[in-house]
Amino acid sequence: MSKTITSEFRPIFWTGAGVSLIDQTRLPQEEIWLDYSDYRDVIRAIKDMEIRGAPAIGVAGAYAVAMAASEFANEADFKGSLEAASQEIRNARPTGANLAWAVDRMMASIQPSAVPGETANALSSEACRIQDEDEAANRRMGRFGADLLPQGGAVMTHCNAGALATGGFGTAIGVIRTAWDDAKVSHVYTNETRPFLQGARLTAWELVKAGIDATLLPDSAAGQLMRRGKVQAIVVGADRIAANGDVANKIGTYSLAVLAKENEVPFYVAAPTSTVDMQLATGDAIPIEERPAEEVTHIAGRQITPDGIGILNTAFDVTPNRYVTAIITENGVARHPYEDGLKQIMKRNVDQS
Amino acid sequence: MSKTITSEFRPIFWTGAGVSLIDQTRLPQEEIWLDYSDYRDVIRAIKDMEIRGAPAIGVAGAYAVAMAASEFANEADFKGSLEAASQEIRNARPTGANLAWAVDRMMASIQPSAVPGETANALSSEACRIQDEDEAANRRMGRFGADLLPQGGAVMTHCNAGALATGGFGTAIGVIRTAWDDAKVSHVYTNETRPFLQGARLTAWELVKAGIDATLLPDSAAGQLMRRGKVQAIVVGADRIAANGDVANKIGTYSLAVLAKENEVPFYVAAPTSTVDMQLATGDAIPIEERPAEEVTHIAGRQITPDGIGILNTAFDVTPNRYVTAIITENGVARHPYEDGLKQIMKRNVDQS
Repeated sequence: MSKTITSEFRPIFWTGAGVSLIDQTRLPQEEIWLDYSDYRDVIRAIKDMEIRGAPAIGVAGAYAVAMAASEFANEADFKGSLEAASQEIRNARPTGANLAWAVDRMMASIQPSAVPGETANALSSEACRIQDEDEAANRRMGRFGADLLPQGGAVMTHCNAGALATGGFGTAIGVIRTAWDDAKVSHVYTNETRPFLQGARLTAWELVKAGIDATLLPDSAAGQLMRRGKVQAIVVGADRIAANGDVANKIGTYSLAVLAKENEVPFYVAAPTSTVDMQLATGDAIPIEERPAEEVTHIAGRQITPDGIGILNTAFDVTPNRYVTAIITENGVARHPYEDGLKQIMKRNVDQS
Repeated sequence: MSKTITSEFRPIFWTGAGVSLIDQTRLPQEEIWLDYSDYRDVIRAIKDMEIRGAPAIGVAGAYAVAMAASEFANEADFKGSLEAASQEIRNARPTGANLAWAVDRMMASIQPSAVPGETANALSSEACRIQDEDEAANRRMGRFGADLLPQGGAVMTHCNAGALATGGFGTAIGVIRTAWDDAKVSHVYTNETRPFLQGARLTAWELVKAGIDATLLPDSAAGQLMRRGKVQAIVVGADRIAANGDVANKIGTYSLAVLAKENEVPFYVAAPTSTVDMQLATGDAIPIEERPAEEVTHIAGRQITPDGIGILNTAFDVTPNRYVTAIITENGVARHPYEDGLKQIMKRNVDQS
């Protein structure tokens, strides 16, 4: 795996002694790779959004577990220390389902009979497998999604659900990329996605690198563009999907979904099954992260707001399933009623294992 | 009229030889007043948004006409030069109705028999009258609007329709201010309003100065806040209102209106009758301004986007009348069907004159 940034790349990779990840807080102005060998640094990198995107956070968390295992291999209480570290990693950010999913999978993969050194090696292999499988899932999802999209129209996306947000290739951007290669999509609209500007900074950067015709717009301009008939479909990623198909995703997703319904634009969610949380009956049970006020009050280090104003910085919102046309996964496409649809989709993971 | 910035102030005033206006591109970090005596500088100030907000632009345009008359008073072709200047002023920005309205009123006020020096004096008085009447209209509007709002809830606004955007007191913020003084409104939500950040920079600044409890949020967070039942009413200003009640206002207004309808939140538009354009049958005929890409690509002088991405920076959108609960003017409140309602409202101007 190389650090060369082409149109297809991975935002994180295993170096043998830790991870190397591209600092997403400094894109697109600077392409800087950070090397971490301490799992605590990975936790901080997740909190500070050097790496973000629910599936990419899952991959980073998996590597962090492997790094912790390696660090604790010579400790008397290897298992206790690893368990404590895994809990810390699991709690780095609350909304995305993939982090808990990946940490749990890592811990469940441990062979009780193995010695710590073997376990550490096995865990690094398991983490690499998680990343490889995530990218492969995205490529399958890309095919399913591209087949769904209408021929020849413009597609809108929100936030960044690209290679940067995943193990590789992207979820929503993976679908768009595949449909672009099929000449099914003629133009992409990316919303800037305040306050962290994932659309303006990250998705715009990925689309330019991929040579895809794309236009960036303020989040508030998306509705009027739909009203004027300029958008034929919306595809977004997801941070957590409840068993009933309610979708937690970047703040603003709900607004887009309502505007899409009002303007009869199909609204698709693309996410791997590791994002689906069958333990939660509805989206109202999804924990929603509040982020620091500084993400709203400051841009590029400069304060834009007056002192004394209150700030709301809710990082995600919940889109009720009635606004979602279909959920695209690596196992196929789920539709209404999602309780059944997602059960079928999730069952295929068990059937395949 | 003083330059002291209290909770009630005017963004522009007549100095006798020209205007002094607060530079709205530098708020809230710097409170800088700019003095202009050449009408061409006022045109540039309008284009560059040193002064903005449809009614404030109208007031600035009126003063610019007076400044041109004073400059041309000793020219042989006084009337021809003034007519040409008034056209330039009229075209400084296209979407707001008040600029053309104010320039036309100024030119119509000229007494054919007057000598140029008299005309120039009369025009500066007329411009001051336009500003005084605008502020008085806003105070009446504030009363009508406050009476409409539900008791004890939170109100959301978009962009800046405050004192800064008008001759004084504000339209939407005038309503909110009045309702706050009535203890009818308990909290105000202001959307940051990308790309120019009028909400984050200007409305937040006005609300803090006025001592009104207020929270700033990214535009994309407004929908979820409504879904969670946190918003009891929305009040926005307008740049131009067509005869059928379609409303052109800051980009993002349409999205808010759709989200309000979906969540059964009343959606009010507050604007003086000088914003109503009875010549246009529907909002589709309203000219919509495209602004420079740099307003999206750069924040506080720093580029946030990658090179090579397309940019959409449509400054306004059109909200069809079916989403508008009521239009609040200084002559009273218009409701569906707006063709009749606005006709009645506009008739009162003729009756009063």
